[in-house]
Amino acid sequence: MALDIVIMAAGKGTRMKSRLPKVLHRLAGRTLLQHVLDTAAALGEARSLVVTGHGAADVEQSIAGSGAICVRQEPQLGTGHAMQLTVPHLAAAPGAEDTTLILYGDVPLIEPATARALVDACAGSCLAVLTLTLDDPTGYGRILRSADGGARVLGIVEHKDASPEQRTINEVNTGLMAAPTALLKRWVMALTNDNAQREYYLTDIVALAVADGVPVIAISAHDETEVLGVNSPVQLADLERRLQRRQAEALMEAGVRLADPARFDLRGTLEPGQDVEIDVGCVFEGRIVIGDGARIGAHCVIRDATIGAGAVIHPFTHIEGASVGDGALVGPYARLRPGAALGAEVHIGNFVEVKNSTLGRGAKANHLAYLGDATVGERVNYGAGSITANYDGANKHRTVIGNDVHIGSNCVLVAPVTIGDGATVGGGSTVSKDTPPGQLTVARARQVSIAGWTRPVKAKK
Amino acid sequence: MALDIVIMAAGKGTRMKSRLPKVLHRLAGRTLLQHVLDTAAALGEARSLVVTGHGAADVEQSIAGSGAICVRQEPQLGTGHAMQLTVPHLAAAPGAEDTTLILYGDVPLIEPATARALVDACAGSCLAVLTLTLDDPTGYGRILRSADGGARVLGIVEHKDASPEQRTINEVNTGLMAAPTALLKRWVMALTNDNAQREYYLTDIVALAVADGVPVIAISAHDETEVLGVNSPVQLADLERRLQRRQAEALMEAGVRLADPARFDLRGTLEPGQDVEIDVGCVFEGRIVIGDGARIGAHCVIRDATIGAGAVIHPFTHIEGASVGDGALVGPYARLRPGAALGAEVHIGNFVEVKNSTLGRGAKANHLAYLGDATVGERVNYGAGSITANYDGANKHRTVIGNDVHIGSNCVLVAPVTIGDGATVGGGSTVSKDTPPGQLTVARARQVSIAGWTRPVKAKK
Amino acid sequence: MALDIVIMAAGKGTRMKSRLPKVLHRLAGRTLLQHVLDTAAALGEARSLVVTGHGAADVEQSIAGSGAICVRQEPQLGTGHAMQLTVPHLAAAPGAEDTTLILYGDVPLIEPATARALVDACAGSCLAVLTLTLDDPTGYGRILRSADGGARVLGIVEHKDASPEQRTINEVNTGLMAAPTALLKRWVMALTNDNAQREYYLTDIVALAVADGVPVIAISAHDETEVLGVNSPVQLADLERRLQRRQAEALMEAGVRLADPARFDLRGTLEPGQDVEIDVGCVFEGRIVIGDGARIGAHCVIRDATIGAGAVIHPFTHIEGASVGDGALVGPYARLRPGAALGAEVHIGNFVEVKNSTLGRGAKANHLAYLGDATVGERVNYGAGSITANYDGANKHRTVIGNDVHIGSNCVLVAPVTIGDGATVGGGSTVSKDTPPGQLTVARARQVSIAGWTRPVKAKK
Repeated sequence: MALDIVIMAAGKGTRMKSRLPKVLHRLAGRTLLQHVLDTAAALGEARSLVVTGHGAADVEQSIAGSGAICVRQEPQLGTGHAMQLTVPHLAAAPGAEDTTLILYGDVPLIEPATARALVDACAGSCLAVLTLTLDDPTGYGRILRSADGGARVLGIVEHKDASPEQRTINEVNTGLMAAPTALLKRWVMALTNDNAQREYYLTDIVALAVADGVPVIAISAHDETEVLGVNSPVQLADLERRLQRRQAEALMEAGVRLADPARFDLRGTLEPGQDVEIDVGCVFEGRIVIGDGARIGAHCVIRDATIGAGAVIHPFTHIEGASVGDGALVGPYARLRPGAALGAEVHIGNFVEVKNSTLGRGAKANHLAYLGDATVGERVNYGAGSITANYDGANKHRTVIGNDVHIGSNCVLVAPVTIGDGATVGGGSTVSKDTPPGQLTVARARQVSIAGWTRPVKAKK
Repeated sequence: MALDIVIMAAGKGTRMKSRLPKVLHRLAGRTLLQHVLDTAAALGEARSLVVTGHGAADVEQSIAGSGAICVRQEPQLGTGHAMQLTVPHLAAAPGAEDTTLILYGDVPLIEPATARALVDACAGSCLAVLTLTLDDPTGYGRILRSADGGARVLGIVEHKDASPEQRTINEVNTGLMAAPTALLKRWVMALTNDNAQREYYLTDIVALAVADGVPVIAISAHDETEVLGVNSPVQLADLERRLQRRQAEALMEAGVRLADPARFDLRGTLEPGQDVEIDVGCVFEGRIVIGDGARIGAHCVIRDATIGAGAVIHPFTHIEGASVGDGALVGPYARLRPGAALGAEVHIGNFVEVKNSTLGRGAKANHLAYLGDATVGERVNYGAGSITANYDGANKHRTVIGNDVHIGSNCVLVAPVTIGDGATVGGGSTVSKDTPPGQLTVARARQVSIAGWTRPVKAKK
Repeated sequence: MALDIVIMAAGKGTRMKSRLPKVLHRLAGRTLLQHVLDTAAALGEARSLVVTGHGAADVEQSIAGSGAICVRQEPQLGTGHAMQLTVPHLAAAPGAEDTTLILYGDVPLIEPATARALVDACAGSCLAVLTLTLDDPTGYGRILRSADGGARVLGIVEHKDASPEQRTINEVNTGLMAAPTALLKRWVMALTNDNAQREYYLTDIVALAVADGVPVIAISAHDETEVLGVNSPVQLADLERRLQRRQAEALMEAGVRLADPARFDLRGTLEPGQDVEIDVGCVFEGRIVIGDGARIGAHCVIRDATIGAGAVIHPFTHIEGASVGDGALVGPYARLRPGAALGAEVHIGNFVEVKNSTLGRGAKANHLAYLGDATVGERVNYGAGSITANYDGANKHRTVIGNDVHIGSNCVLVAPVTIGDGATVGGGSTVSKDTPPGQLTVARARQVSIAGWTRPVKAKK
């Protein structure tokens, strides 16, 4: 059988009060729509069809390359209408039990297992609908189950049409469903807009299925979060917290020790070693790998990084596009920018910025320094306040520092320049020519004291 | 009619364990008393009378200039006694339906709409009392409503005097009320202190109103938060969170995207553009304006600032009394101090401090630098580690940097000094005289290497 | 009577997924086992016996010096077996009412008062068991109380053996107990492992006590937190939050004003003065003393420090092993490292690091500077970007700065060096020899401008 997955993504999301189409808002770093596409991809061999409408160009661009087929809905006349537009694209080989799964671009946390359960319940011959049990179902369409207590659904009654007895039912329709594609095609083309809103409602196919004698099967969502939609920034923030909590728990189950799961943000993936500790207030983005026994201090922001085993990242460290070697010590207030590659046992201290530079094993830059476009050898001591002047206003140049070099304080290394192995550069020197290995190089004015000099005095105002 | 608003602010707040009078503790940046005064001001034309007692001088000073009349209560013999002291100050023109509203300086979150509802219910002829429905009303005075289920109140019975049946009532008295001023004057002067505590209780006027046949009307507070009092640091922290949540929701409803509303603090006002994003852990104080599409990174602290459209504020940025131009990039770890005015597209990077300085469009100071009392032109590149030496120990002086200037690394610009348009200053230079436009200026010692030099060796201990 | 306290600490804690034995995981900075040992110590004169097993060597080393007796359990055949191994070590003088209290190394928050209540209920003659009332007691052993409703327990029935009626009981056994030592010895030696798991269960002694006619007394835990065990990182994080909330409330009750108790971490002790304010996101470790009226800004990390009265610590400050004088101003982004001792009214500003240095009253280092191994006099102004070059690559040397010294910007003070009282060092100077008092010392190259110089141009790629 063929599986088609239709994702409704045409809505405007007025309550978001944003220029961005609703499904392009981000949850844990991915757009809402991307979450749903990723879930679709997790179901294996399937085609995704995305119905776009408001902001269609932006939405389509955001998923270019995903392989999804985009179907534009203009104007937007309801979910049934959206579905009608997809009909020409749906696979329906005779007798093939082809199935269509219907998801929503603004219901981002549906889990693959649940989506799979819908498809399985459909089995190419039933209509499977996803339901949720609510404490307060007011306003939702109620699921009328057969009297035998089984999964069979007799129908869905809208809140406004429900009898007092039906209103006591707290199992409601979520709108997610899976249907035999051939039947679905027939049903959606039979939908009408005979209602006050003049819209075509996809839900109406449940009645059509019942009328056709096709079994309707209810599948229960296992938790409310997976069927929550995003209609406003408040709902977006709520879902973000639920997802963050879910991610935090998964990491803790894997052995990561989080000082406070409510103050942990992961917007991407984190691959932890054993005995990783993460203090409060850290934010992780992109792809992160953390080695065994590494510790991340409070209030760090880390994006696209590899942290070695046993490394210690002190508080307030900002890392992006960088790697940290085993046993390295970084921070507090260290900034590693893209291309920073720290070897094992490297120390990067406070107020130090490293960009596009490699540091050999045991090298140290402990205080107030800048290393940009530099190749730094092993066991180098790079002094407080020292700067690689890598930019001449037009081009970037490289600084090469050999092994066992000692750079004094407040030096400027004017690139391109090479500091030979074992060289020492005296504090306060501006070095613009290569320095020989093993020697002391200085560029320093003579110190003079001026007797009789008097200090400036406070000006009268 | 004239509206007088009496605010009780004489209490000590022993449980606060503070030298500060209770009503001067701060909630979201304003004192408790100021919250109530601001609510009073929102009711329009009215006089505010503040009853002071403990720490009266401090309390009175804190509201000097507010126009409120302060009435000292010494000693403090209860709320009824406090009210008696205000009698000479209350307006009560014959037949004018003058009204008095009674608020409390330690009940800071009463909403203007609720206060207004009390005044309207009073209508110059009834006693209107604010009530709250509690799950557990134990200890509170119960509201005895008339049997017809209307708003009429037959009386208030204290918990200790209530019958078992009355104790099942969960509507309680909050103490806030509005009364016809002329009647109120008569009632409060009739209060006695015939009780164990020898205090005059304002609540007793309800019985006097009933005895006089004056209708007593109950107005329900629409949410518990607005009638919560502050008696301890725990309660203060609880109210702070409730207010912060309320503020966060209002901003989200306006379209602001907060990564976590539970980790957002606003102690002042924030005026957001469209599509503003604010990451976790940010603290805003004073008056903040943020333009369309601006993004504020994690853990920023921002006070009295204007952030331009499309600007990006990276994590750990500290801004106070500064403005950031459209499309500027600031941080991480940037500090903008009072008088920093960044033009459009300016970049201020890590470990950079800017104080009382203007930067023209496109100027950049990306690393470890200080700009104080400087005027910086457009497209300037201000090198890593460079410092404006604006203070000679007695006076501050100004540094002027022209357009298109390139300042190298670790320079010192000794103010007063002017760097001409298009000038370049070589890395490591200390510049104390004006530099000509377009030329390279350096102040640099000759680089020498010393063969045969030997490194210091570790001293024996 | 003698009190022995047995602490079960042999478990592996498989679900922790850690190389560390379970009881060595940390809660608010102390190991789980240390929490229990500290509670045991709070009970006064008593001996602690710790039963070790998994990771015994590490566990024993972690408590070396605590005075506790370690008893190894290998293999681990259940709590009853663990107890049997302690028998030779338990005091049981004839007729002395000697008592044994049984605690668990992974139940860390048991309160001394509760432990004391167990010992008192035992009274040398009864078996006292600690119970807890749960909303959902499924799976736990139920407490069968005597029909008279008193504290007497008739037995404990395991969930699987309980009748439907017994399963409605929601008072459950926690496993903590106190027993007359002589009886306990007899009971534990009578335990058998006639069960599916072939383990010896300590709980079985309740039945033996009942059979012996020894009264069994139930003591209720006053709150769930004190009997919660740690079996996984999720549970550890949950307990951490509960403990942090408890600590935060205790500090607030003492008058400390916390901007958000949910974002406050204390891993050690904090001794506050009056009117201390602590903003959001701060982490305290070790021993902290904060003076009257001091304010700690948002997102500070402070370990082993003394903060003087009236001091203001601005956001993002990192302090470890340092003291801050009265009225000092520190931060934002200041780092005080071990041995930093700031006098009264000292100012340490942004991007400044101070290590092993004393600063006299009123000294200032406001911007981008490093002070290491320095003695700084009163009223010194230490310029932006200035560095003490305290390390020559082999040894650390001391810098001495007299009173009223003015150090310019971007200076290097090459230690060992002394700057005389009242001396001024010109900006950009590298000073390697002592400077005379009162004089201006400079080491600065001549400033030259080069006409006709042309800027580098962007290289073609």
